[in-house]
Amino acid sequence: MLKNHVEQERPGEEELGRRLEEARKRLGALQMQIKEHGLPVLVLMEGWGTAGKGSTIGKIIRNIDPRFFKVATMAAPTEEELRKPFLYRYFARIPEAGKFTFLDSGWMDEITGDVLQGKLDDKGYASRIDSVKRFERQLTDNGYLVMKFFFHIDEKEQRKRLDALLVNKDTSWRVSDSDRWQNKHYDKCLKVFDRYLDDTNVSTAPWYIVDAHSRKWAQLQVLEMLCQGIDVALQNKSLAVPLLQNTFPLEKMPKLGEIALDKTIEEAEYQEELDKLQKRLGELHNRLYRKRVPVIIAYEGWDAAGKGGNIKRITGALDPRGFEVHPIASPEPHEKARHYLWRFWTRLPKTGHIAVFDRTWYGRVMVERIEGFCSTNDWQRAYNEINEFEKELVDWGAVVIKFWVHIDKDTQLERFNERQNTPEKQWKITDEDWRNREKWDAYESAVNEMIQKTSTTYAPWHILESVDKKYARIKALKIVIRELEKVLGE
Amino acid sequence: MLKNHVEQERPGEEELGRRLEEARKRLGALQMQIKEHGLPVLVLMEGWGTAGKGSTIGKIIRNIDPRFFKVATMAAPTEEELRKPFLYRYFARIPEAGKFTFLDSGWMDEITGDVLQGKLDDKGYASRIDSVKRFERQLTDNGYLVMKFFFHIDEKEQRKRLDALLVNKDTSWRVSDSDRWQNKHYDKCLKVFDRYLDDTNVSTAPWYIVDAHSRKWAQLQVLEMLCQGIDVALQNKSLAVPLLQNTFPLEKMPKLGEIALDKTIEEAEYQEELDKLQKRLGELHNRLYRKRVPVIIAYEGWDAAGKGGNIKRITGALDPRGFEVHPIASPEPHEKARHYLWRFWTRLPKTGHIAVFDRTWYGRVMVERIEGFCSTNDWQRAYNEINEFEKELVDWGAVVIKFWVHIDKDTQLERFNERQNTPEKQWKITDEDWRNREKWDAYESAVNEMIQKTSTTYAPWHILESVDKKYARIKALKIVIRELEKVLGE
Repeated sequence: MLKNHVEQERPGEEELGRRLEEARKRLGALQMQIKEHGLPVLVLMEGWGTAGKGSTIGKIIRNIDPRFFKVATMAAPTEEELRKPFLYRYFARIPEAGKFTFLDSGWMDEITGDVLQGKLDDKGYASRIDSVKRFERQLTDNGYLVMKFFFHIDEKEQRKRLDALLVNKDTSWRVSDSDRWQNKHYDKCLKVFDRYLDDTNVSTAPWYIVDAHSRKWAQLQVLEMLCQGIDVALQNKSLAVPLLQNTFPLEKMPKLGEIALDKTIEEAEYQEELDKLQKRLGELHNRLYRKRVPVIIAYEGWDAAGKGGNIKRITGALDPRGFEVHPIASPEPHEKARHYLWRFWTRLPKTGHIAVFDRTWYGRVMVERIEGFCSTNDWQRAYNEINEFEKELVDWGAVVIKFWVHIDKDTQLERFNERQNTPEKQWKITDEDWRNREKWDAYESAVNEMIQKTSTTYAPWHILESVDKKYARIKALKIVIRELEKVLGE
Repeated sequence: MLKNHVEQERPGEEELGRRLEEARKRLGALQMQIKEHGLPVLVLMEGWGTAGKGSTIGKIIRNIDPRFFKVATMAAPTEEELRKPFLYRYFARIPEAGKFTFLDSGWMDEITGDVLQGKLDDKGYASRIDSVKRFERQLTDNGYLVMKFFFHIDEKEQRKRLDALLVNKDTSWRVSDSDRWQNKHYDKCLKVFDRYLDDTNVSTAPWYIVDAHSRKWAQLQVLEMLCQGIDVALQNKSLAVPLLQNTFPLEKMPKLGEIALDKTIEEAEYQEELDKLQKRLGELHNRLYRKRVPVIIAYEGWDAAGKGGNIKRITGALDPRGFEVHPIASPEPHEKARHYLWRFWTRLPKTGHIAVFDRTWYGRVMVERIEGFCSTNDWQRAYNEINEFEKELVDWGAVVIKFWVHIDKDTQLERFNERQNTPEKQWKITDEDWRNREKWDAYESAVNEMIQKTSTTYAPWHILESVDKKYARIKALKIVIRELEKVLGE
């Protein structure tokens, strides 16, 4: 893109002033519409060192109400961030509905930097490009406006700016080693940048090359393109998008109705196994911690199926400094205002840690589907989005274990009645549980579809037969141990 | 995609029957909505030989009113088609609004075939992929639904089918050499197919892999995915799409107001030059014909600027068997029902021929823009679409020459009045001409924007100063001769 790009002619001073004035007013007006329509706008500013990304952001935000935007300057990843998946720190910063986030450098800078430093080979680069394309597509598919700007200056201009900054003590600190390195290896960088821009220039989130030789002119280009992008996005409220076919390898799974629920375990055997397995899990947890393997255990299942007790038998074996349980209820307003996967991205464990989710991102294709909390297009699209999410986790090196805790309808009724009739258990049963029970068939068919479509070979579902809760606990422990042994090579 | 693809489980006979019934009904109902909403649907069926593309199309269309669809079986390109750009025969077959076109093999088959036969090197392949992605994006950006199916069977199944066909005289003719070759080189083909599917799997026109081991099941998959795709498209009426930034190299052009219009030529010099230049052009036309170079000359300009007379001086020099003039008026209903570039794609010259367009595809960014015949998003997007269109022509080997025939407002008034007052010229002046004249300023600003944004280095605009029509004719002849000499290496 950079090689072919011919800059628009810079307008004269007078026209520049007039158009700037106009574009600023327009952005000021558009921010109200963004708010009103709940449009989230992610603005990514990438480009050459000293090209003026930061100062342009500074100028642009003067036209926006401070309640409506955030600016994030992305430096090199912190220690903490390095222990999360590559996309984590970007996903964590996506804007709420109705607001802007401006990123001063982002995933392009990180990837091209890694390529230039020889940290990413061709295969690693290709995998990063896949991640980025999925990430951006998941955002735009879910109604985000993603505007990507590349600030372009030529070698001479960059050198001139570096020299000017270096000459003065007050400004010389602003010149980074990386800026100087870039200028020395301008052509090499240009090639890597250009390839990246070509590889990620998709029509749903295209690149805009900004001629950044003059700051005012750069500002005008960004303002005008930003307004244009917002206009287009505002016209496309409640957009349905094509459903991508799953391209991940799937495991063949039984339907819920085919699962025998008569499996039991004797009390004595249970106690013996429990002790043995918990001890083993504790050992493995230590090794995981040292090898820095992150583990994600996801629990879904029928109400009263015994999720809570099952989770306790897992966590009871773990060092409390190395795990966290996330109970997932309906989303808070600030969570609802973002991509539905955001609250899970931000709850990921660090490497070496275990995160247990009591209910999960699968709410999208169960309760949100059945209660109509999202559109049909939304939940139909979600199977693929979830497979992509879990692929990201597995590629990062995580172990992902998903449990469906299963009982039949009669067993549920028994347990509901028992809860209802036992004063100290009454808090465990609500009207909503009874209402959900009425929708058993709809749930069963949704769960069947979910299990079929998201049992990827890298993150398949495991069914825990839980009419005998003890049986289910032992089975869960065995599966967790087996998966951890696999990844630890034992 | 093929490597990772895990087939959905084929439902049992009973469920299959029920779902087929349902999907057929649904398609039957959807066709009325397609008609009503004017949605054009292009269905591309690609895949392995003997996988059942044709027979599936046969089954699908039974559910559609014959007035609403066309089926095109794409064999190898004809002699005639080989003398047009690669995309020509596909663009020519795009459906009208409210109708289906089913293509039994298409551009994928042609490209992968050329790769397998060694006719396309890596560079040629990359350029084809660019063309295809632009083509599909231009369709979906302009409201087309593009559904792409790949019919997948494994090597053994293909061999079994080939054997079964060959054993019987009545069916053996249906086995092509290419089918047999494919089966012998199954793995090689798989690799090429897979790469193509990956390279062109975009979210606006994704691929659907169809498990084609059973015909009924294949039919159901296509029917269900087709219905789903139509549902999504129907929800997205009047969709605005992001504007892609121009990535083609541009020439710097003057504004209309800066052009000196006082250029003239003496009568004697005019006659002498005209004779000489026309003779030269005639010679070059012969050579063009032999070298099979296609030429496209596009005329735009103010009313009464002298386009007609200018064109005559060009065509007067040409062998009538080797050129055609296309006067472009407002589109006919069947043209309006398709992508606005369709009527130009279908009027392209054969190699060795010259096509002169008296008004052109630039109507999109002039009259259609100013009269509101298309949306703002439509004409803003068109600059890039037009640059892509002309790039396709130049890559094919065509010479593309674009003239803006220019006069000032006073000269137009003089000529209008002269026409009005000269009985034999009155037919040349209409009320519409006067109405357009009132919009001179809006047109001037649209033309300026058009010239700035579409003067690519490979197809720049040439301004013909036509207050002295003779001067403009000589200038046009000289430019055409210069461009033809360039391509002929003279």
